[in-house]
Amino acid sequence: MSRLRFRISMSLDGFIAGPRQSVDDPLGAGGMRLHEWVFPLAVWRSTHGLEGGEVNESSQVVEESLEDVGATIMGRNMFGGHPGPWDAKQPWEGWWGENPPFRHPVFVLTHHARAPLTLGGTTFTFVTDGIASALAAARWAAGGEDVALAGGADVARQFLAAGLVDEMELHLVPTLLGAGARLFDGVGDDLHGLHLVRTVATPRVTHLKFERP
Amino acid sequence: MSRLRFRISMSLDGFIAGPRQSVDDPLGAGGMRLHEWVFPLAVWRSTHGLEGGEVNESSQVVEESLEDVGATIMGRNMFGGHPGPWDAKQPWEGWWGENPPFRHPVFVLTHHARAPLTLGGTTFTFVTDGIASALAAARWAAGGEDVALAGGADVARQFLAAGLVDEMELHLVPTLLGAGARLFDGVGDDLHGLHLVRTVATPRVTHLKFERP
Repeated sequence: MSRLRFRISMSLDGFIAGPRQSVDDPLGAGGMRLHEWVFPLAVWRSTHGLEGGEVNESSQVVEESLEDVGATIMGRNMFGGHPGPWDAKQPWEGWWGENPPFRHPVFVLTHHARAPLTLGGTTFTFVTDGIASALAAARWAAGGEDVALAGGADVARQFLAAGLVDEMELHLVPTLLGAGARLFDGVGDDLHGLHLVRTVATPRVTHLKFERP
Repeated sequence: MSRLRFRISMSLDGFIAGPRQSVDDPLGAGGMRLHEWVFPLAVWRSTHGLEGGEVNESSQVVEESLEDVGATIMGRNMFGGHPGPWDAKQPWEGWWGENPPFRHPVFVLTHHARAPLTLGGTTFTFVTDGIASALAAARWAAGGEDVALAGGADVARQFLAAGLVDEMELHLVPTLLGAGARLFDGVGDDLHGLHLVRTVATPRVTHLKFERP
């Protein structure tokens, strides 16, 4: 069975992005602090075409998160650019340049239809009829492998509230953002069977992995 | 130097009590789930006059939290009972019965003046002029030992925002409450030098300890 696997970095106060997200500041004020643990890692650098880097307790966690993933789902805000209808002349093509690091089918949840976009080894398909449809298409495209749920907050909340997430790993960063996008806002008090199965503790980040039986 | 040490159990979504707290349900709906990790421990049971119990990875964390504490500060809501002025005929005497487990001076922050209350080995002193005054009195009463900050949310936020907490340990419980009292609401994005120094991971709870240099 192809599983839906969700991973995200979160502050102590529950934010996965800071306030005032924009094209110039996609992670919001202070949001970069949530990701500082990953940038030095050799495994992160290699997926972004960079050499060198560290190997530490977080490396295995990141490597594992990349294994057996055949498709990715993300929200429009994570794909990025302006809100509302796509610019007809110069439609936004994502944050990742000509060779995005996914290299498998990516499904972008949006209210605004658009033809698929291929950049390097990644094709972005724009889904306008909701999370169940996106998940069905992503599972099909993954060809038996798992599906990664990338975020952002709004799409993640919808999948969590619907009980569709089979695995969740929170990269809890020991910092406060004070404001921004809260992961669990409106999700309710039900983890739908997700329970803590592993903790990897480092000074920079605590990796909390949840699974459903 | 006598340090102010703060310990509290918090859900994944940042709540330290559930919604609809009342005299009948002081932890709010679902709030008991934040404390289920501690009740089976022998060290918790012995401080509450009970025998037996478990010893596990959390035991050392709880034992440490009880060491070298000479006074405790708490908010009116944690001391409990009705809101507003104290009942003149039958003033609320706390949740803990005739022999509260503190057995050292406790300072209760409140807007409503009241004479000190002694129960067993614990004297509750009611402080109406704010956190700095409560901390000064508690430090004096602790006689060189540390001061514990017990909560609840409102008083904890005031001490955190003022940068007065020298040590913080979050007992992060892998559950959602969905609503209630959020620890870090309004605290801002500044931990005032508190940084993660130790993580103790168990299946039921993750103990995240922060200190200031």
